[in-house]
Amino acid sequence: MSASGKGPMEFFFDFSSPYGYFGSCRVDDVGQRHGRDVIWRPYLMGAAMKITGSEPLVQRKMIAEYAHHDITRTARRLRIAFNPPPPPFPIASIAPCRAFYWLADRDPLQARDFARRVYAALFIDGHNISEVDMVVELAASAGADADETRAALADQAVKDRLRQETDGAIARGVFGSPFFIVDGEPFWGNDRLDEVDKWLETGGW
Amino acid sequence: MSASGKGPMEFFFDFSSPYGYFGSCRVDDVGQRHGRDVIWRPYLMGAAMKITGSEPLVQRKMIAEYAHHDITRTARRLRIAFNPPPPPFPIASIAPCRAFYWLADRDPLQARDFARRVYAALFIDGHNISEVDMVVELAASAGADADETRAALADQAVKDRLRQETDGAIARGVFGSPFFIVDGEPFWGNDRLDEVDKWLETGGW
Repeated sequence: MSASGKGPMEFFFDFSSPYGYFGSCRVDDVGQRHGRDVIWRPYLMGAAMKITGSEPLVQRKMIAEYAHHDITRTARRLRIAFNPPPPPFPIASIAPCRAFYWLADRDPLQARDFARRVYAALFIDGHNISEVDMVVELAASAGADADETRAALADQAVKDRLRQETDGAIARGVFGSPFFIVDGEPFWGNDRLDEVDKWLETGGW
Repeated sequence: MSASGKGPMEFFFDFSSPYGYFGSCRVDDVGQRHGRDVIWRPYLMGAAMKITGSEPLVQRKMIAEYAHHDITRTARRLRIAFNPPPPPFPIASIAPCRAFYWLADRDPLQARDFARRVYAALFIDGHNISEVDMVVELAASAGADADETRAALADQAVKDRLRQETDGAIARGVFGSPFFIVDGEPFWGNDRLDEVDKWLETGGW
């Protein structure tokens, strides 16, 4: 429960998702406007896509071209800094996901700071966030100890933690990025965030 | 060109698509607000989905449940009359598509009236719009001759006309429903119609 006594808003995302990045730039504002804590929950969307039978938009015929166009157009509309990441894309988000939960169990705010740095590294600076060295560097820039972070990334307990989070997200019907759940109501897509805003303002419809 | 001297807005849709139906209830208002003629272009989205490798949302694991929820929630938000159609769904939209173009070549306004009746028949009254008898009845209610409509549905020239329209849509990068193109700019989804509105208002970004 937040200070307002209202339940939290959950924000599910994959670190390799451009629309998840856009959501990350806006979700805390929406939560704050309505007195809702926001719980950030990165997960491995690829595990959900195996179940739904989905391929990444940017790898699908016809849709890829549109998706690239829409992603850059959306960034301009929302005035969010964005540079299309270099290949390979999409990339594995396991390492930053593991680091996130390791950090989050110690300091949720530091974990959120780290998550923002991961997204900026990928979608502004074009770095390869799937690499352990890059993840360690980003965690260190958020204030974590580099050696401890590196050890955590290889720790079975940390690996299990991420698996549980991903399984838990899927068990709750989460399959996309971003994906929001608030008051039991699911919303899929960055383009549903305005709807979340309206839902919380009006109490739903 | 419309009376305003501005290029038209094209509205691509499949008669079996709930989000296409929602778009059909709103697209003319958006066009009118910006002095744009709206060209309605039903097509067989299934042909595009064979290329993109997509399955209907309501047939995909996990996504189906969300899609049903989002569709009814969207109808309530937009205050559009909607009843989830009975099985089988989605259904083949070949017959109403053929009738549409046969009508459109004679009387575009009558064709649009017919299209609205098709959508209402499926998404309000739960009728099977894939059946020739139903399509003939709907065309007749829009003012067309029943026997001529029935004959047209079996006419090779009418069949070819629809194939050309579908091929043409795909050649222009159309793969979804609804899908809008205005001033060369593509927008996919009912949830992009507000963005089209803003694009036309501001001149783009």
